[in-house]
Amino acid sequence: MKNIAVIGYGVIGKRVADAINLQDDMKLAGVCDIISDWRIQNAVRKDYDIYAATEEASDKMKSEGISIKGDMQELLKKSDLVVDCTPKKIAAQNVAIYKEQNIKFILHGGEKHETTGHSFSAENNYESAINLNATRVVSCNTTSILRTLTALKRADLLDYARGTLLRRATDPWESHLGGIMNTMVPEKDIPSHQGPDAKSVDPDLDVITSAVKVPETLSHMHFWNVKLKKQASKEEVLKAFKTSSRIKLIRYDQGLVSNNTIKEMFLDMGRPWGDMYEVALWEDMLKVVGDELFYAYVVDNQAIVIPETIDAIRALTGIETDAVKSISKTNESLGIINSY
Amino acid sequence: MKNIAVIGYGVIGKRVADAINLQDDMKLAGVCDIISDWRIQNAVRKDYDIYAATEEASDKMKSEGISIKGDMQELLKKSDLVVDCTPKKIAAQNVAIYKEQNIKFILHGGEKHETTGHSFSAENNYESAINLNATRVVSCNTTSILRTLTALKRADLLDYARGTLLRRATDPWESHLGGIMNTMVPEKDIPSHQGPDAKSVDPDLDVITSAVKVPETLSHMHFWNVKLKKQASKEEVLKAFKTSSRIKLIRYDQGLVSNNTIKEMFLDMGRPWGDMYEVALWEDMLKVVGDELFYAYVVDNQAIVIPETIDAIRALTGIETDAVKSISKTNESLGIINSY
Repeated sequence: MKNIAVIGYGVIGKRVADAINLQDDMKLAGVCDIISDWRIQNAVRKDYDIYAATEEASDKMKSEGISIKGDMQELLKKSDLVVDCTPKKIAAQNVAIYKEQNIKFILHGGEKHETTGHSFSAENNYESAINLNATRVVSCNTTSILRTLTALKRADLLDYARGTLLRRATDPWESHLGGIMNTMVPEKDIPSHQGPDAKSVDPDLDVITSAVKVPETLSHMHFWNVKLKKQASKEEVLKAFKTSSRIKLIRYDQGLVSNNTIKEMFLDMGRPWGDMYEVALWEDMLKVVGDELFYAYVVDNQAIVIPETIDAIRALTGIETDAVKSISKTNESLGIINSY
Repeated sequence: MKNIAVIGYGVIGKRVADAINLQDDMKLAGVCDIISDWRIQNAVRKDYDIYAATEEASDKMKSEGISIKGDMQELLKKSDLVVDCTPKKIAAQNVAIYKEQNIKFILHGGEKHETTGHSFSAENNYESAINLNATRVVSCNTTSILRTLTALKRADLLDYARGTLLRRATDPWESHLGGIMNTMVPEKDIPSHQGPDAKSVDPDLDVITSAVKVPETLSHMHFWNVKLKKQASKEEVLKAFKTSSRIKLIRYDQGLVSNNTIKEMFLDMGRPWGDMYEVALWEDMLKVVGDELFYAYVVDNQAIVIPETIDAIRALTGIETDAVKSISKTNESLGIINSY
């Protein structure tokens, strides 16, 4: 059984730890962070082994009554692979340590492709990650772009894609710190980085994105305009999207008219934190005009990369060499099913 | 085993149904509503017996493939008690039906005290509800006022209380419909209705409230200024609050600095929808100046009345005549414990 460490117990790290804990072919070796407040109490409650990233953090945690198993070095020694979920600058420093100790590692979308030399999206390029030393699970927005465009590409429908990305302003728990109000803040550069980033996984994609930050924290929403290779029916397009187990077709006429209603549905389903691992794409809003395709979907920025990360662990450790089998196993463990 | 019907499967109804389903001394007879979209799918997933409130709703549900057990009359016939969770005007119509059929019923805070002649708050007046035909579980804000002031009263500390209530604008799933933005909307009248409403449970309370709607959907927040009967220490006040199992003392210096951080903590804990049944009161913010007491707390408007409703069911049906035992049983079933 491979031992997996989670470094950084924030929005992504706490979800990755729970997801690892749900698998029967890998083991959570422990979590490591510098926080000592209510956030780490979640790991205490779940009885995870906790490691302190710095000596200062260790002292602070101990003074808060948190029982610590050791420092980051000790956690790494026990682990076969590290999932780094720390903020950008910390991750870059950690990479040097992972390389020096020759331990496999997974980074997230905030890092550069060059840091690992491989970027990962399960339905697109699982096979190319098998037994590698490192990969980068691409960001939430990029993951959603890859899932949807890969589905169109598999059906030989995709010529090129142009998207407008409405990004949530910050994470829900942080909205007292990094919120915006009564404004919309566009990224200055077109293309925004997400389109080019998708090419780090699939260099053949012709995709250009623009992005704007909007004053809400629930999820991202994307609007796409795709040039098809040929005239196609709406049914052909939907059939293509249905080949992905991680695209959930939803209906506006079923009352799912906004991202807060979608969030509530996933809370109704009992998903932890109301997490939506799928891309929720409006089936009835989708429109084909000649060889042009228009659609919109919602992306849960906190959750969509979690199943991807589990698959990346399987690929890098080589415990599963079949992408379909890994995806299906991950889906089952997280309750990702085609009908709700 | 008493059979309990839930009429109205909205924000409160779906939670009440789940809570009933968790008890071992009562049985969920079924849920009844007119909705046929994603909201009722939650009841389908949970395999609850679904009844249609109107013929029109029945047709709509059937056309959506929802299997229906019957109409509202049929549900009432199978039930010993009804929890009505419908919107204001519907509940008033339903009461005539409940009375005609001589079935016990519980209403929620939107209704008038006069409709039932009894208003309920478990820690305050459970005993007076035993074997009654009807009661009204008071609103979220009023419940929080009663829990906190009753605790101070039990310790013989309370002279009078003055509170400012910051109310969430609407429920999360509805914020695309009833939201407000970039504004704060005060209630015109002082006292606002919540203070007087608390007197429907405890006529002796001297309490005056003012209220304002703020542009967020997570929870209410109250600021209180209480005149004590005598000079008291902060420790005495905290000890009084600790006598309530449904007041959760939290600490600002533990990073819980806003209602979105508190929400995240309850999501971390795996509570359904991140529900907080407790009043979350800031222990370190609380201040005593002479015989004056100042404190603030957060109220989850979607969740706080759920344990109260379960206790009200036990009182009305007489299946438990001891308030402490009912409260403790309800707390255990919902995971309300004193330490997290």
